Amino acid sequence: MPLEPGRAVAELGELRELTGDDDGAQRVAWTETWVIAKEWLSGKLAPVGVEEETDEAGNQWFTLRGASERALLIGGHIDSVPNGGWLDGALNVVAGAEVLRRIAGDGTPPVTVRLVSWADEEGARFGRSLFGSSAASGTMSDQDEIRERTDAGGIRWEDALRDHGVVLDRALEAGRQLEHATAYLELHIEQGPVLESMELPLGVVLGTFGVERHQITFRGQAAHAGSTPMDKRRDALAAAAKLALEIRRIAARTGGGAVCTMGSCVTRPGIVTSVVETCTVLLDQRHLDGEKLAVMLQEAKEASQLFAREEDVEVEWERVWRIDPILFDESLIELADEAVTEVAGRSHRLPSGPLHDAAEVARAGVPTVMLFVQSLRGLSHTKLEDTKPEHLELSVTALDRLAAKTIDRVAAG
Amino acid sequence: MPLEPGRAVAELGELRELTGDDDGAQRVAWTETWVIAKEWLSGKLAPVGVEEETDEAGNQWFTLRGASERALLIGGHIDSVPNGGWLDGALNVVAGAEVLRRIAGDGTPPVTVRLVSWADEEGARFGRSLFGSSAASGTMSDQDEIRERTDAGGIRWEDALRDHGVVLDRALEAGRQLEHATAYLELHIEQGPVLESMELPLGVVLGTFGVERHQITFRGQAAHAGSTPMDKRRDALAAAAKLALEIRRIAARTGGGAVCTMGSCVTRPGIVTSVVETCTVLLDQRHLDGEKLAVMLQEAKEASQLFAREEDVEVEWERVWRIDPILFDESLIELADEAVTEVAGRSHRLPSGPLHDAAEVARAGVPTVMLFVQSLRGLSHTKLEDTKPEHLELSVTALDRLAAKTIDRVAAG
Repeated sequence: MPLEPGRAVAELGELRELTGDDDGAQRVAWTETWVIAKEWLSGKLAPVGVEEETDEAGNQWFTLRGASERALLIGGHIDSVPNGGWLDGALNVVAGAEVLRRIAGDGTPPVTVRLVSWADEEGARFGRSLFGSSAASGTMSDQDEIRERTDAGGIRWEDALRDHGVVLDRALEAGRQLEHATAYLELHIEQGPVLESMELPLGVVLGTFGVERHQITFRGQAAHAGSTPMDKRRDALAAAAKLALEIRRIAARTGGGAVCTMGSCVTRPGIVTSVVETCTVLLDQRHLDGEKLAVMLQEAKEASQLFAREEDVEVEWERVWRIDPILFDESLIELADEAVTEVAGRSHRLPSGPLHDAAEVARAGVPTVMLFVQSLRGLSHTKLEDTKPEHLELSVTALDRLAAKTIDRVAAG
Repeated sequence: MPLEPGRAVAELGELRELTGDDDGAQRVAWTETWVIAKEWLSGKLAPVGVEEETDEAGNQWFTLRGASERALLIGGHIDSVPNGGWLDGALNVVAGAEVLRRIAGDGTPPVTVRLVSWADEEGARFGRSLFGSSAASGTMSDQDEIRERTDAGGIRWEDALRDHGVVLDRALEAGRQLEHATAYLELHIEQGPVLESMELPLGVVLGTFGVERHQITFRGQAAHAGSTPMDKRRDALAAAAKLALEIRRIAARTGGGAVCTMGSCVTRPGIVTSVVETCTVLLDQRHLDGEKLAVMLQEAKEASQLFAREEDVEVEWERVWRIDPILFDESLIELADEAVTEVAGRSHRLPSGPLHDAAEVARAGVPTVMLFVQSLRGLSHTKLEDTKPEHLELSVTALDRLAAKTIDRVAAG
């Protein structure tokens, strides 16, 4: 049975019609629309003759038994953010289903091949992402916090989980799913502008960035905008403005794909007639190299202290969140490079800024790699998210090619 | 009857007890507490034998008839912001009452002397300041807008005015009060740090700053903080940060007391994972020289356009408010300098950043001058507002000295 990439693209359109509206995709995890999407996926794979099960964390697995228990995993997530795009997550699930069909059509494979649709990658309803994959990888250590989380309507997450057949205390038992896994592949839209700017349809992902996320508060003195001479001011916004510009120099100096973002700036009292007393900003720094990330953080801290001295204000840092870089498997990266080059003529290696379920699987020790397909205008998490149909088809073909190469390698031991 | 500056300071304390609470002064115009303050002032001046009247705009007048109809006016405002300071406005009214007592005690003056307590200088309840003085000066051209204004509780300003005996359509008739005015004096706390930093108790005010107030919006592109390389960003905050720093260079270049303030910065979407798409800032620029103010505005506009080009974002300006500089009377400034030098040994001329009722009177063509007394730490509009008692006493003495000199000059023709 030959691969039909066009069928996968048509099915993505079908899923969009079924679970989206004028505002975009609405497949938010632990909702009725998400259940409809999951049942739709079951229906698509039922004729293929694969075994289906849902594990203790709500992850949906489709298994094609091979000659060996050793398993190649292909994964994605069918959940979306509210008013989301049609491709984020769903692309890999639907592409993976097509690859599974192709492999099943070729007879019993030498190794077992499994498709997993991870539960709640986005964390859109309860504000904590990677639920299903972090349960399987064993990194979910915050059950107590999860238990107390509620959605905007006050419904407890634990209750919503139970309504969907998931008992929070048993979620980590999903870890057994990774027991025989020898490789994990994930295709995803890039959600960034790099491939488009290089006019490349496909790329190979080196790993996910380490992230340092901080809230930084500068405290000066409120003072009348009319009666306070410039040299008598303690302007918190001025110090923050200097930092907003300096983080770009830090990223440029560091190189290697380093990014630093000040995404929020809040001023108090925030009125036109007063010098800003307190300015609170959010800083996000990312790098694929943990040591370079640490240096970037240190440089930002030192810069903030210098600016605070210059402006006669105080500065305080509070960590919001951090994660180490997660590097993908070198030999799978090489295989992925081969597959992409065969399909698209040229490959490019790039880091992933956003986290993905793949990072959780890699943290569990399963050799992992991801493919990126070009995103138009880098847009994601919006109904404007899109990728050219011919690029989507190429991505399905590249995933299939990579799966075939990986099966060969695993089978060869 | 000799001047008793200490009595004025004691009366200010009495007013504070009567109309303040643990959060500060509560003499908000068009409230019961304001009425209590006005009645307290009447009670203080009743024994002096002056005529009292309230005009069509709610201004409270105390008139000591002199040999001539030509009148010296001393003015202030007894209203405060909520949780305000004890001195802002009230100082001059109470000091003026003491000066009126002193002059009355000396017999019939050669010219008429009048104390005015302007209604609603602060505009705290309905958001529009200088109600009474702008009615008297004739610059109040926004009655239709005033009519529709409501307070936080939805009460229409026009109704609140009527409850206090003011018929909005007749407010401009208060202009008759300025008919025979030949000079206007106002004492006020500085509300800024200049005199304190110069270790001077008193200063003479040259006029009130012209003000240009704008809302500036930079529009870039929201983009994922992890997946968008630094050189692919259109960061609205970066352009705003450059402007926040540039306005200080513009003020420094312009000199002459120029001030530029960015008091508010609002970022959207304002989340840690996204480059800022829209950044809206408020810019306040002030100068005593109208031409220099116009140049400062032009320079800020050009800088914003340059930064928008550099960051590949758009920029849009919207005027919030403006007022021309208002210069006080040169010969009264000289008299005030003499009075301050006699009382404090040294004088200093400075512009006023905040507007005052005096600016309205000056706009009406009445020769005007103001005295400033040192504010501790430059604080105002807070219960922390304060001035040393010895400086308050000096300010009462200086106002009295200035009144005497002005009466002499007016009497001499």
